[in-house]
Amino acid sequence: MYKETSTRSIVKALSWRGLGTIATSVIVWIFTRRLDVAVAVGGLEGLFKICMFYLHERLWDRVRIGRHQIEPVVVWLTGLSGSGKSTLAQSVSAALAQRGLRVETLDGDKIRTIFPNTGFTRQDRDAHIKRVGFLASRLEQHGVFVVCSLVSPYHESRDFVRKLCKNFVEVHVATPIEECERRDTKGLYARARRGEIKNFTGIDDPYEAPIRPEVVIDTREVGVEQATGRVLEHLKRYI
Amino acid sequence: MYKETSTRSIVKALSWRGLGTIATSVIVWIFTRRLDVAVAVGGLEGLFKICMFYLHERLWDRVRIGRHQIEPVVVWLTGLSGSGKSTLAQSVSAALAQRGLRVETLDGDKIRTIFPNTGFTRQDRDAHIKRVGFLASRLEQHGVFVVCSLVSPYHESRDFVRKLCKNFVEVHVATPIEECERRDTKGLYARARRGEIKNFTGIDDPYEAPIRPEVVIDTREVGVEQATGRVLEHLKRYI
Repeated sequence: MYKETSTRSIVKALSWRGLGTIATSVIVWIFTRRLDVAVAVGGLEGLFKICMFYLHERLWDRVRIGRHQIEPVVVWLTGLSGSGKSTLAQSVSAALAQRGLRVETLDGDKIRTIFPNTGFTRQDRDAHIKRVGFLASRLEQHGVFVVCSLVSPYHESRDFVRKLCKNFVEVHVATPIEECERRDTKGLYARARRGEIKNFTGIDDPYEAPIRPEVVIDTREVGVEQATGRVLEHLKRYI
Repeated sequence: MYKETSTRSIVKALSWRGLGTIATSVIVWIFTRRLDVAVAVGGLEGLFKICMFYLHERLWDRVRIGRHQIEPVVVWLTGLSGSGKSTLAQSVSAALAQRGLRVETLDGDKIRTIFPNTGFTRQDRDAHIKRVGFLASRLEQHGVFVVCSLVSPYHESRDFVRKLCKNFVEVHVATPIEECERRDTKGLYARARRGEIKNFTGIDDPYEAPIRPEVVIDTREVGVEQATGRVLEHLKRYI
């Protein structure tokens, strides 16, 4: 974030106008070889152009073409463990950053490593989701796009976050449990089946699928690029 | 946050150059009454000034005077309940906002009302402080000044937050407990003395005073305005 003082702008404007007027006078002199005409043209041009520049700026200020206010969005990816949320989140974040937007990626698992005492009971999960949602809403308020990937299995806490945010896009990464368990990238399903992990979503804890998510992605059917495209399609009116 | 497309900038530059060249030609014609000279001066001036404008911009880009990069800071107010943290936090935030900076105020008590399950045991407090600190550090990274007011009684969690942030200014609101208890604005000290509140900092839970805080304020000695001035004095090199 840069800030230019108004003094800098004034000095810069004067230095430009000075150079401009001298250039005009010299060119007029080259063509006319008359110093009085050159100085008169330069002087009148200098005064006239300051007014014209001001009016030109004011006019363009009313023209909306090519200028749009950036309204950030909280993109919330919900789905089972291993459904492909984090991969999609990273891809969406990268695509937004490439457009010069401010982006923050909040990964539920990564935030858990910063706060290792967060458990997996319904109460602990709910608190975790609400806190990440609060963080997202604060960042959104300050002009940052936020891409969150959390299992976030319960309606109530997801709706809590939706209400905190101004623009909320819920993406249900709806890869079915059979496929997630087949992939089992982190070996968590095997451990949950053996009873080594309690309250595991889809095994011994429910996943309440979103009722009206803005986007639904089944990663068996679409690749990361196509899925990213579908999320961005939904963000089109904001970016 | 506004974003102008490069097309808008190009169209605007051309519309300005066009108007400028026409104005110069008309002025030259008024003085010389020769259309050929007027067109020639206008044309040469148009081409020449585009190059000159570009060089003028490049030159100014190297001049640092009047331009400074804004580096946000996390201002962390720690102190006993009733020491005056929240009042000072609001005053500092208002002063920063008045300078056109992005500011977020994070009040420990207010965040607790959003997450009512946060307790007051050492573990709960530590987790709360670290989470608020994490939120602050994310906002800082995205160009937002953050003013936090939390009792935050323990070294360890305050140092955890210091390490998360890039610029961290610890303000010890060092109003002594006798004064805080005398004020007892929220009636909490009376309740703690009656044993109705457990783990109350200063009564039956320790307050580990900062060892090397950037600023120390005793609200018995300085008013809000003066205290705000002292905090801002410390932020001078950032704002």
